Amino acid sequence: MDGIVSSWSSEDYDKKNIELCVQEIKEEFGQQFSNSKSILEQHTHTMTIHESELPDGVVFVESKEDVQKVVKICKKYKCPIIPFGIGSSFEGHLNAPYGGISIDMNNMNKILKVYQDDLLVVVQPGVTREQLNTHLRDTGLFFPIDPGANASIGGMAATRASGTNAVRYGTMKDNVIALEVVMPDGQIIKTANKARKSSAGYDLTRLMVGSEGTLGITTEITLKLYGIPEVIAGGRVSFPTVKDATDTVIMTIQAGIPVARIEFMDLAQVKAVNNYSKTNLPEAPLLLVEFHGSESSVKEQSELFGEISSDFGGADFEWTSNNEERNKLWKARHDAYWSCRAVRPEASLYSTDVCVPISKLSDCITETIEDMEKNELIGPIVSHAGDGNFHVALLIDKNNKNELDKLDSFLTRISERAIRMDGTCTGEHGVGQGKRKYMLKELGNAVDIMKQVKNAFDPNKIMNPGKLFL
Amino acid sequence: MDGIVSSWSSEDYDKKNIELCVQEIKEEFGQQFSNSKSILEQHTHTMTIHESELPDGVVFVESKEDVQKVVKICKKYKCPIIPFGIGSSFEGHLNAPYGGISIDMNNMNKILKVYQDDLLVVVQPGVTREQLNTHLRDTGLFFPIDPGANASIGGMAATRASGTNAVRYGTMKDNVIALEVVMPDGQIIKTANKARKSSAGYDLTRLMVGSEGTLGITTEITLKLYGIPEVIAGGRVSFPTVKDATDTVIMTIQAGIPVARIEFMDLAQVKAVNNYSKTNLPEAPLLLVEFHGSESSVKEQSELFGEISSDFGGADFEWTSNNEERNKLWKARHDAYWSCRAVRPEASLYSTDVCVPISKLSDCITETIEDMEKNELIGPIVSHAGDGNFHVALLIDKNNKNELDKLDSFLTRISERAIRMDGTCTGEHGVGQGKRKYMLKELGNAVDIMKQVKNAFDPNKIMNPGKLFL
Repeated sequence: MDGIVSSWSSEDYDKKNIELCVQEIKEEFGQQFSNSKSILEQHTHTMTIHESELPDGVVFVESKEDVQKVVKICKKYKCPIIPFGIGSSFEGHLNAPYGGISIDMNNMNKILKVYQDDLLVVVQPGVTREQLNTHLRDTGLFFPIDPGANASIGGMAATRASGTNAVRYGTMKDNVIALEVVMPDGQIIKTANKARKSSAGYDLTRLMVGSEGTLGITTEITLKLYGIPEVIAGGRVSFPTVKDATDTVIMTIQAGIPVARIEFMDLAQVKAVNNYSKTNLPEAPLLLVEFHGSESSVKEQSELFGEISSDFGGADFEWTSNNEERNKLWKARHDAYWSCRAVRPEASLYSTDVCVPISKLSDCITETIEDMEKNELIGPIVSHAGDGNFHVALLIDKNNKNELDKLDSFLTRISERAIRMDGTCTGEHGVGQGKRKYMLKELGNAVDIMKQVKNAFDPNKIMNPGKLFL
Repeated sequence: MDGIVSSWSSEDYDKKNIELCVQEIKEEFGQQFSNSKSILEQHTHTMTIHESELPDGVVFVESKEDVQKVVKICKKYKCPIIPFGIGSSFEGHLNAPYGGISIDMNNMNKILKVYQDDLLVVVQPGVTREQLNTHLRDTGLFFPIDPGANASIGGMAATRASGTNAVRYGTMKDNVIALEVVMPDGQIIKTANKARKSSAGYDLTRLMVGSEGTLGITTEITLKLYGIPEVIAGGRVSFPTVKDATDTVIMTIQAGIPVARIEFMDLAQVKAVNNYSKTNLPEAPLLLVEFHGSESSVKEQSELFGEISSDFGGADFEWTSNNEERNKLWKARHDAYWSCRAVRPEASLYSTDVCVPISKLSDCITETIEDMEKNELIGPIVSHAGDGNFHVALLIDKNNKNELDKLDSFLTRISERAIRMDGTCTGEHGVGQGKRKYMLKELGNAVDIMKQVKNAFDPNKIMNPGKLFL
């Protein structure tokens, strides 16, 4: 256990060396390099409450050879490297607490090849999920993972992203077949070939997915694709209590209904939507569902779900397989973000994320609502209920120290609550800087094992330092 | 990259120290220890062509504390440890090429807790999959992974096992939520809590699944469960060519039919079954399918599959949702193993396993059949076709050097063929001793990265040495 990275400190990096490194990268990359203030700021200003910590320069890479070149130069000077995709991270993943080089992957945005018969696609990391699905439109295939933002596939892999339809299609962990990665020593590896399953050695693909740029930089990603469903049905139903809604979710999954999306909204979120979208939803906890399949299959799924929800007091269940009508039923979900902002327009929105076993979802949400009431915090809740994952969209005045303090202690309580209920402090946003302090409580000495991996791969501590654990 | 394990050699282990280690374990464990010849032999004699290499002793552990005690003693003497489940491995995973202690997990066979609402179960590693499903019968839930043998859950996790219904339910990689592991330094970690998804740090669960006992010893496993389908339908259809059958598989998956099993048999396998089971199946490539769902859903799936197979020349498609009739239709698959043995009763059966992208499955199977014809080898083929995974059941006289040589070069060709087609030398059996020599060809320098992980976790090289890579 000797030689394990126990933490990072500014003493690990030499300011002079970083300057030399930036200089060499600037000379090497010319127009592909920038250290203008606004560019530096853009590369840390993400959807987060974390204060920006600027890098010393940004390189806009165009190929894996570019990435390799940057890594080799940075290795020479022990200079930090922070991979940057779209910048939609919530947890300060993109900050440069020890300076260094932000490596912008957006120009590596080619969809390299669609393997129609194998339901696979190979993309560069800068491809966004909307770009990918637009490209796939004529193939009859689609990539289902939808974390909300139009994130880059590389960023989604790095944070093990998921979103509304993970309940049916899984997360990035389940949908990345193989990666090409530039390792911290500059060598390029492929983690697997293109078979849909393999028992050939350690699962390096899954080790890289969710490693938040701390173990290497992904330069190519092979993803699973799915046939676009023949019919998509959507539905909506209100419940007397949070527990009635989550019991409906549990029973739906136990009954084997292959629900594609099952989203929960709490009372505060429903009120926010009514107010913003001028709708008349019952002021009560809400479930929104989506079913994929044939006409008769989505009908059967919808009706069965209707029966289950009615057993738990669900009222006014409506469903449709008409696209336009479905979008109307789901409007509440689509408007969730903007309706939250409208609750307190002058405030900043900070979205946090925890995930618990489904049996604990109701308790965890209920206690969290009580917590916010008691502490005078405003935070509507939406939940990917089928996974036990939920988000609180906290509306905070960033310039008010008292509010920031209240937020901080709330975040500790909600994370510890989820952990106490045998869950995790992050179901899909990742650890970044923000959730590092909960890792030990959640995983105990397994964090030391993570540090062993980190130390083995990146003894120079150049890959995205200051993230993932303390 | 200094200090990386490049291989094992007998010089890594001191015979005297191993003797001292065995003595200490004997004294510590008393009746739980044995080094009788027959017990030693039982712990390496597996379903394999690999010659037995005996350990120096076997410990029958009963708790994680026992496991921890063994690991700590073995660490002190740098003595190899080989974890043993049921012994159904094909690739020599259980051999002790450098001697040491075989650690028998079969007495750790408690089903610790079923979490009905969360569709989870926590088991000890010695629980077998049949034991688990018997236990679950009254809950309406089941654990789907079925690698054929009544393997232990610990062994299945260690080899990243899958089987006939991976096409719908995934492999062990997809169905293990969390592990408790005794690490090579003796500390006990849990890799995750019980949330169905998490983005909290490196995916140690997936790193351990498939690591073949080379990174630690699993003492507790949390698994996903599924609702037992309301109705199960089965079907059977013959095709003019291998390609017609695999094209049907591709189209079935592209159409989004959630087929639960889709198994292929080649001509030789069909003939073997006709001969053994006195059936009259058309002497042609065969697909067997299974559908899970409601009565109307399995009807729809079956009929749609029937249409697709008919487009590719499929003849006499039959299907049923009656259990007894279904078992009759599927009898060919259930009899596959024994029908193979009957082709050459005096021979040993060695099952090899490769996996390719589905678009390559037809080519890979066809070339493999031609290869066997040319080299006068007998090896009926069954395939988990939905995953691109297939098995050749080679019938070999183990006492005939010429046959063993022919087998050896065939195994090299089939593995290299799969790799050339962008697939893997093992889809579900694991690497063990037998497939180590193909790892470099398949994964190149990624094997060095695996060695970095191994070296970081197990610098004393005590965990199942001589497996997974050269």
